[in-house]
Amino acid sequence: MDRPATQSRFAPRDPDWERRCRDGFARQQYMRFIGGELAALAPGRCSVAVALKPELTQQRGFLHGGVTAALADTAAGFAAYSLMPAGSSPLTVEFKINLMAPAVGERFVASGQVVRAGRLLTIVDTEVAAEAGGQSKLIAKMLATLICMEATPDRAAE
Amino acid sequence: MDRPATQSRFAPRDPDWERRCRDGFARQQYMRFIGGELAALAPGRCSVAVALKPELTQQRGFLHGGVTAALADTAAGFAAYSLMPAGSSPLTVEFKINLMAPAVGERFVASGQVVRAGRLLTIVDTEVAAEAGGQSKLIAKMLATLICMEATPDRAAE
Amino acid sequence: MDRPATQSRFAPRDPDWERRCRDGFARQQYMRFIGGELAALAPGRCSVAVALKPELTQQRGFLHGGVTAALADTAAGFAAYSLMPAGSSPLTVEFKINLMAPAVGERFVASGQVVRAGRLLTIVDTEVAAEAGGQSKLIAKMLATLICMEATPDRAAE
Amino acid sequence: MDRPATQSRFAPRDPDWERRCRDGFARQQYMRFIGGELAALAPGRCSVAVALKPELTQQRGFLHGGVTAALADTAAGFAAYSLMPAGSSPLTVEFKINLMAPAVGERFVASGQVVRAGRLLTIVDTEVAAEAGGQSKLIAKMLATLICMEATPDRAAE
Repeated sequence: MDRPATQSRFAPRDPDWERRCRDGFARQQYMRFIGGELAALAPGRCSVAVALKPELTQQRGFLHGGVTAALADTAAGFAAYSLMPAGSSPLTVEFKINLMAPAVGERFVASGQVVRAGRLLTIVDTEVAAEAGGQSKLIAKMLATLICMEATPDRAAE
Repeated sequence: MDRPATQSRFAPRDPDWERRCRDGFARQQYMRFIGGELAALAPGRCSVAVALKPELTQQRGFLHGGVTAALADTAAGFAAYSLMPAGSSPLTVEFKINLMAPAVGERFVASGQVVRAGRLLTIVDTEVAAEAGGQSKLIAKMLATLICMEATPDRAAE
Repeated sequence: MDRPATQSRFAPRDPDWERRCRDGFARQQYMRFIGGELAALAPGRCSVAVALKPELTQQRGFLHGGVTAALADTAAGFAAYSLMPAGSSPLTVEFKINLMAPAVGERFVASGQVVRAGRLLTIVDTEVAAEAGGQSKLIAKMLATLICMEATPDRAAE
Repeated sequence: MDRPATQSRFAPRDPDWERRCRDGFARQQYMRFIGGELAALAPGRCSVAVALKPELTQQRGFLHGGVTAALADTAAGFAAYSLMPAGSSPLTVEFKINLMAPAVGERFVASGQVVRAGRLLTIVDTEVAAEAGGQSKLIAKMLATLICMEATPDRAAE
């Protein structure tokens, strides 16, 4: 699941898309905080993974739904960002997520795939899988809308 | 925003609802990890707050959308749980969140309000405000569906 | 429910907003087809109503969920459109609707209220009530995102 | 798009699922009203189609978003219903739909595919395509949650 085909039907508009995405991900302090890693990246696709840790759980010991959503939102964001022009920034307008099964596992992988990349709006379909004992199980599905902020560097103002 | 009227049109089904909710929140390791606090609690209502910290930000220095969603999901969860019978557990079926404005602020407060409490399904409307300099600004709105798992203690199996 | 306060915290950007909205509604052939009527209109608010008819039902005799969604989508659209500049057009980006109770009633009223009106995106919160025997019951709630298409007349090309 | 593979990874629980679904569809007066037809049906899958007619349009002459949603909701409903036990009824809990491109075309086909079929809740992913001049274009995507009402005949009370 975290190894999508590198071939994709979307062509990046910025030849430097990959470095731009990897830099952006590295600057997400929250991803570092929870131990998230960029597991796969291709034009229009991105996978983000995290290992289960006690501090990421809710009261029943499962991965907190907010962490599942954060993983999926981040995968969706970089899948969309990979197709945006240089100098722009992605912003999540909204997302809807179905938490379909308890988030029980050793590692969680969110894989986002762009469904439609417009000039302004990008729609991303993202699935989250729980991995345990060599098995992978679909636990969540997200449908998200992102907007491309042109002439907005994807970094904090200095 | 984090001080909803204590009067509410919903009557709890478990006289011990408040202790049950406070205990459940205290056992959410992820809330402790990000510094979330239970800011208000009433039958059918719950507010959860967090102060901005660098480790909760995305690449532009705003609160990560996944943290905004986690706050709102948690507020929705305890608003719903406050009305559920003893011995049950709430489970988020799905939620949809609109991130309406950049999450810029010193403190963020998600306030959930039950819209409909059925025997099985509960619908919660949640708003997230960013507070800065004594001002509060609406930054996100969530509409969530939760399910009541009867005879499912709201804690990890031992 | 279909008589929102005429006072509103949003100021229209087009002095001719009301005529523009009423004309737009009158040109919605689908609303005429199902018997939808513009029940209330104010800056940032709109209510659309329909009477139950056999041809609008699903197999159990309730209002079809797609009709409930169409009413809510239309109310949201005109609530948003009332605040848009002259010469523009509203387009629904996405919506999420919770069908909270069976759509049983004599008349159904969807009331949309703008939550945030940005230059580009407008977020609308819409509730649908079923009326029967002088009583009104909340049956659905929608959270929608609309985009303002500038310089796009809100009519079919000729 | 309206000819999904008949092979499916879901096994129906009711041997009489197909007749039950076709009967249920035939009793949807609203589908008859708009001219909707059951274009394909398999365990866990359903396609519903409609031809463009002036009375189904909004003010710009495109298919009304509420009709697009109704098609998708109906396809999702019968995809879910095909896997439900005898004597039960499907009820849409909620859905979220992204209207990704203007609904311009001669015929519209919504194809629903069950993502997860639980005992109680079923999650369905549905895509809507616009067909024109032998071409098919994806115009909408829906993610829906349905609930199985056991011991609830899928017909109006007599």
